[in-house]
Amino acid sequence: MENENLLKQISFIKEIDKLKYIQRKTKLFNSDRHENDAEHSWHLAMMTIVLAEHANTPVNVLTVLKMVLIHDIVEIDAGDTFIYDTVKNHSNTDEELIAAKRIFGLLPKEQADEFIAIWEEFEEGITDEAKFARSMDRFEPLLQNASNNGGTWAEFNVGFEKVYNKKKIINEGASPIWDYAENLLNESVEKGILKN
Amino acid sequence: MENENLLKQISFIKEIDKLKYIQRKTKLFNSDRHENDAEHSWHLAMMTIVLAEHANTPVNVLTVLKMVLIHDIVEIDAGDTFIYDTVKNHSNTDEELIAAKRIFGLLPKEQADEFIAIWEEFEEGITDEAKFARSMDRFEPLLQNASNNGGTWAEFNVGFEKVYNKKKIINEGASPIWDYAENLLNESVEKGILKN
Repeated sequence: MENENLLKQISFIKEIDKLKYIQRKTKLFNSDRHENDAEHSWHLAMMTIVLAEHANTPVNVLTVLKMVLIHDIVEIDAGDTFIYDTVKNHSNTDEELIAAKRIFGLLPKEQADEFIAIWEEFEEGITDEAKFARSMDRFEPLLQNASNNGGTWAEFNVGFEKVYNKKKIINEGASPIWDYAENLLNESVEKGILKN
Repeated sequence: MENENLLKQISFIKEIDKLKYIQRKTKLFNSDRHENDAEHSWHLAMMTIVLAEHANTPVNVLTVLKMVLIHDIVEIDAGDTFIYDTVKNHSNTDEELIAAKRIFGLLPKEQADEFIAIWEEFEEGITDEAKFARSMDRFEPLLQNASNNGGTWAEFNVGFEKVYNKKKIINEGASPIWDYAENLLNESVEKGILKN
């Protein structure tokens, strides 16, 4: 007797392999190699486990992990949108919602609903878990760019104010990490790798 | 005032970026591109969330997630050992223990101890969480090889019996998944992509 749920779950597991081909704009630490979405998601999951103690409010770590592990899966269909893109808005596009329904929809109904809800919670950024998850998502590329002589800031000519405004929501999820991040941005200006 | 724990944690977060360069023998689904350890770890984490209901005994999903996210980090120093390697034993080598102590040792003491303990729990494979985590670790490359006309089975001339013996511990963690896996192995023999 085949287990119907298991067959649906395995088709989902195969489908999400495609996340490994979605290339981000940012590069690995001290590197010229672009990061892909699966690597990025793993790194955010590790950061979540390691940094959870710095959350402004105690968070449910399992929920945050689910968020960061699945948050970019919609990009399998919708593609990666650059955070400093001036034409396309990053968050919660119609295209992403359609992608969420198709990809998470491969799972058994109850699980699909749960995953779509978790993804939407992350995108809305209102709950403590979503705020912390989004802090991780903003913090990783900041560390990467600082290690890469400015990385995408330099490559796409993005200045301090724009970066600062995108990054300051780290403060909503984890103030101690924002203190560190703010220092790093200021240091990056002093070093000349982020223009003022 | 700098937060001493945070600085240690950030140095760990930077160090583990190297996992993205550790190439596995297995390849992505329907692909010629090798998988790296960070992608593999992300995929196991996704499988854990999706498949936890099939565990033989209800497992603490957060613990399993920590296991699969960190289980290969020692390979940053010790390298990937092929599961069918006839010279080097895969599990718990001295080299891996030294690596665990160095890399997890970058973290604050309490956290370092926790991560080493979780990694050892995974390696020992005795607890329900470790059994389930190890099922995931065995199941992913099986799916990949089946999708790749035999993948590493064909490439390294590994036959049914050897594969079967390595894979059957899936049964200890998740019997319904083992039923599926066993069928897939038999089908692979019938298709001629796994020699009998």
